[in-house]
Amino acid sequence: MKKLINAPEGVVKDALAGIAAAHSNLVTVHYDPDYIVRADAPVKGKVGIISGGGSGHEPMHGGFVGKGMLDAACPGAVFTSPVPDQMLAATKAVDGGAGVLHIVKNYTGDVMNFEMAAELAAAEGLDVASVVTNDDVAVENSTWTAGRRGVGVTVLLEKMVGAAAEAGANLAECKRIAEKVNAQGRSMGMALTACTVPHAGKPGFELGDDEMEVGIGIHGEPGRRKEKLANAASITEMLAGPILDDLPFQRGDTVLAFVNGMGGTPQIELYVMYNELAKLLADRGITIGRNLIGSYITSLEMAGCSFTLVKLDDELTKLWDAPVLTPALRWGA
Amino acid sequence: MKKLINAPEGVVKDALAGIAAAHSNLVTVHYDPDYIVRADAPVKGKVGIISGGGSGHEPMHGGFVGKGMLDAACPGAVFTSPVPDQMLAATKAVDGGAGVLHIVKNYTGDVMNFEMAAELAAAEGLDVASVVTNDDVAVENSTWTAGRRGVGVTVLLEKMVGAAAEAGANLAECKRIAEKVNAQGRSMGMALTACTVPHAGKPGFELGDDEMEVGIGIHGEPGRRKEKLANAASITEMLAGPILDDLPFQRGDTVLAFVNGMGGTPQIELYVMYNELAKLLADRGITIGRNLIGSYITSLEMAGCSFTLVKLDDELTKLWDAPVLTPALRWGA
Repeated sequence: MKKLINAPEGVVKDALAGIAAAHSNLVTVHYDPDYIVRADAPVKGKVGIISGGGSGHEPMHGGFVGKGMLDAACPGAVFTSPVPDQMLAATKAVDGGAGVLHIVKNYTGDVMNFEMAAELAAAEGLDVASVVTNDDVAVENSTWTAGRRGVGVTVLLEKMVGAAAEAGANLAECKRIAEKVNAQGRSMGMALTACTVPHAGKPGFELGDDEMEVGIGIHGEPGRRKEKLANAASITEMLAGPILDDLPFQRGDTVLAFVNGMGGTPQIELYVMYNELAKLLADRGITIGRNLIGSYITSLEMAGCSFTLVKLDDELTKLWDAPVLTPALRWGA
Repeated sequence: MKKLINAPEGVVKDALAGIAAAHSNLVTVHYDPDYIVRADAPVKGKVGIISGGGSGHEPMHGGFVGKGMLDAACPGAVFTSPVPDQMLAATKAVDGGAGVLHIVKNYTGDVMNFEMAAELAAAEGLDVASVVTNDDVAVENSTWTAGRRGVGVTVLLEKMVGAAAEAGANLAECKRIAEKVNAQGRSMGMALTACTVPHAGKPGFELGDDEMEVGIGIHGEPGRRKEKLANAASITEMLAGPILDDLPFQRGDTVLAFVNGMGGTPQIELYVMYNELAKLLADRGITIGRNLIGSYITSLEMAGCSFTLVKLDDELTKLWDAPVLTPALRWGA
């Protein structure tokens, strides 16, 4: 196992300490229970937006804490749901009196633990709403999921809902926007290589030298099929085709196109893939109104990529363009 | 060879087309000769700042073209210097009447080809100055280098000099600042894995399952030594020690600390390394005034990292903080 770490059991705490050391102007890191919170939390009168999930997907979610995006993020162990105590502490820390929205990716552990935290918070008199993302068109049920997995849409949703909350939207409005982004978004990913969970010490699955996994999940869980390696144009069709057919996206639509690296993918390859996606969408009469290209929802050092498309309208475009100031996404501020 | 590409010979053009499709609001891509230029070039009365080098190091340099950083970048084939025609065309394209500064990493091919381009431009009446970066403390001479290699400082220098040019500094002043950043900066890197140049089809060097290369170059050229794998704290000492001793950096100094991923390194590991570096610098009485953490000067899919430290003063801090609006670095704009 080749990793820049000290010991497998300390990876998450060491990385949190690195975030604390690097970004103390933006965020504060709390330990036991672990959560990352906006340095100026709670923001009085603003809906608090929190998310969380297993570690190993960085910058998601901790890198998205800051003005215009998340108020807090709860990191679990690598590829393991955080526990309710973390979400409860984060919920209290960001409550500015206008309620708190939980953004939950659809994995059984995350859904269960966020639900428990929401119940505990409600019992303490806090106003909590939740939205579950389930944008992965690859499979209907999966290793750790009943229903579709929540993947790339989560990143875009956190940005848009964060902007709405920053602009003063109330809790019901934040929840409406979150559900809208999830409803209008679809994703699918693939892997060239597996990744290794530090405490496991060996790759989570096997891929031959001439194989790739199409429809991979962000924990390396199986997708639709193993296939022989193909070129960028063919892989683009394998990912974009099911995404477009599912919503469906239609001629005349304008989308936010997100080409995401899985963690071990160099940027030159992401731009090759973006070029293929842009050509394919142009052929289908779909306009790319906004884009995001980079490794934002990752699976440790896995090589591969995913596509996410969200159908844009004026409301979502404006929320996307609004200023954001976090460790991983920053513009207009 | 597992890569998201169409064909090895088309990688650079395909990626350039992706940049053009993604960032037409910021940059324009020209082909034959290939260069990426600010969409609003030439900026009248402003010194033009250009750089270039082999591809495979993305986002360097093309991702740094835009307001407050580079006016143009010239991408060569993968790990191969661009040709003088590219730099000449880019120099003419960005000349706003105040002269053009060439930022050149110290590799024999780059230095020779930029010199030739500068002579050709001078023969056409353009005012061109050059600065060569040579910040890598690992080795004095290397596979493609007489003297030290130019690495991570180049990224920071391009940001700072770009800010100076944007604020109206003249050509001599831009050159002075560039030389100052290079003089005050040092770097060193390491690799956990090799990388594969697409048209070569196999890794550029061999590393055992329990080995790493300390002092690696950004083309995979040999460093100081192969070593048994070590933990993050030990690797931090191996990289930061020679950097600090070389300038030397001293107790009381304030630095910009740049922890760079080599292309295949996940972000969680970069934050583990940043945490170790922050502890080591605190022990030595050195303050981190600013930081940059991410994969900005890469070697295709190589796993590993590099550290760059630049000694800060008020002038450089102000230039670092100034607004920048490029595909890869964006703040305050």
